[in-house]
Amino acid sequence: MVRILNKSNVAELLVMSDALEYVEDAYRQLSLGNAIVPQRITITDPAPGLTLIMPGIIGGEMNALATKIVSVYKNNPEKYNMPTVLGKIMIQDINTGEIVGIMDGGLITAMRTGAATGVSVKYLARKDSTSMSIFGAGTQARKQVVATYWALNQKLEKCKVYDVKRAASESFKAELEKELGIEIEIIDEVKDEFFQSDILVAASTSSEPLFSGEKIRDGMHISSIGAHAPKARELDSLTIKKANLRVAGMKEACVAEAGDYIIPINEGIISSDDIVSIGDIITGKTAGRQSANEITIFKSVGIAAQDVAVAKLVYDRAIKNGIGQDIDF
Amino acid sequence: MVRILNKSNVAELLVMSDALEYVEDAYRQLSLGNAIVPQRITITDPAPGLTLIMPGIIGGEMNALATKIVSVYKNNPEKYNMPTVLGKIMIQDINTGEIVGIMDGGLITAMRTGAATGVSVKYLARKDSTSMSIFGAGTQARKQVVATYWALNQKLEKCKVYDVKRAASESFKAELEKELGIEIEIIDEVKDEFFQSDILVAASTSSEPLFSGEKIRDGMHISSIGAHAPKARELDSLTIKKANLRVAGMKEACVAEAGDYIIPINEGIISSDDIVSIGDIITGKTAGRQSANEITIFKSVGIAAQDVAVAKLVYDRAIKNGIGQDIDF
Repeated sequence: MVRILNKSNVAELLVMSDALEYVEDAYRQLSLGNAIVPQRITITDPAPGLTLIMPGIIGGEMNALATKIVSVYKNNPEKYNMPTVLGKIMIQDINTGEIVGIMDGGLITAMRTGAATGVSVKYLARKDSTSMSIFGAGTQARKQVVATYWALNQKLEKCKVYDVKRAASESFKAELEKELGIEIEIIDEVKDEFFQSDILVAASTSSEPLFSGEKIRDGMHISSIGAHAPKARELDSLTIKKANLRVAGMKEACVAEAGDYIIPINEGIISSDDIVSIGDIITGKTAGRQSANEITIFKSVGIAAQDVAVAKLVYDRAIKNGIGQDIDF
Repeated sequence: MVRILNKSNVAELLVMSDALEYVEDAYRQLSLGNAIVPQRITITDPAPGLTLIMPGIIGGEMNALATKIVSVYKNNPEKYNMPTVLGKIMIQDINTGEIVGIMDGGLITAMRTGAATGVSVKYLARKDSTSMSIFGAGTQARKQVVATYWALNQKLEKCKVYDVKRAASESFKAELEKELGIEIEIIDEVKDEFFQSDILVAASTSSEPLFSGEKIRDGMHISSIGAHAPKARELDSLTIKKANLRVAGMKEACVAEAGDYIIPINEGIISSDDIVSIGDIITGKTAGRQSANEITIFKSVGIAAQDVAVAKLVYDRAIKNGIGQDIDF
């Protein structure tokens, strides 16, 4: 029997405060050596898009085994009126290997990516943070704000948003003001005041740095979740250089995939020893923010452990609450 | 919309003669460079079993993209009254990346593995072959016989079967005599006459050689589909040495995974240059059997291209015939 969970089932079962907890635990288990995330497989030619195959396993109390198959086809919207990113997650019973659940992967991907920033905010931002600025107003950007809101124990008051598409910012504002009850300010041109917020999030589709590191001010926490290729980045080398603490969702993954860290390493500005995994801060192996003046950076590329953890949460809750459809096959 | 195909749907849609054709085409496309089979991912600890994640893509006319997730948990039968091997195949639309079909993977795995031997029989066995002997009487062994029967254009007349479990051989005999109308002889002790058949198939769970290469006679075709780890093998070094033609389902996979070839290579008996992929024989890049006296060997470890091809066949036929269940998620 396989429990099938469609988009609305997942939406019904998944709230950000829980996703934050599960993603934090995924990072913790990675640090403890209880989670294994094999290098994901990328399939391209002869397909006109990209498919990523992302399996992972988390032991400990979570005991979760799942694989996400996610595709990124840039021409889908124009050519087929379909989303660029599509995916499903197959969850196995870790004791028998049987696939016991298959669920839509879209919302889970957005929520776990938001939760990554949320976990970084919890551990790296100043405790008295109340404001954020964000590059990007898409689906992913919205979950970044929701996660930051919950990570700050609902103390987020204001968010400035910049997107090249004004319409996206307007819908972002309408949606989040309603959902979170915070003030959203749409920014049409990025000036100095954009960098006065306590937290700065980059959730863009840009592969070039979004701003000069000169703009960064002391005490800020920066999270970058866009750009995940060795030659692409959202943050420039000066930003990386100025930071007091350079953190990764998973160091090995960022050093292999994220230009934000790879390029400054190649330039000799930092070495890979200057980057720590957030799991090691969560478990106390490495110190976190030391003072209110420090600049902290969090860079994450998606790793399967995030998906596995959130998929397990959704699946367990679906079984408990009788949500979804059972198919015998 | 995702088409869900359970075990009986797959059984209804898949016959061996078609599986043979599709697996042959998968090997052909591999040889032509139109198919890509990334190294599969293996997940074990902290799970008590093994999960293999096997994605693959085949271009050309087939245009198929799919991933098999298959688990091997040896304690399942005793502990949970469940099969050792479980799996599902997710098939994507190669043009959009969307997962459009999910099907049970058990029968497809057995059929495509049988079909591999069938393709080898078609290209490597003597054309006048009418008899076979087989080590193993399990599910997989049965499909080996069915595939050989079809590969010989239904001219297979007799099959000798040996299995350590007599009951398995009896059920093998009953099933195949009914399905194929050929004579099945159960062998309780393997003696010289077992090696008088035209074709010898090894489909055992043994990790040690099943017989001495001294037994092998001229003109025989041997296919080994059990044992798929570097230190495990069904064929001894003398068998490999005596062969005139040493073929692999996919050379790169066998040289990485199959002790049947790896051990004699390490012993200096053959070099990897002495092994050819069957696709290269199908496409005529390499010569096949040269005379009725030659001994030919085929060794295959499962590769995703086989699953992708057969899954595409099943999916296309399901859509055409309205078989299975559509789920919106």
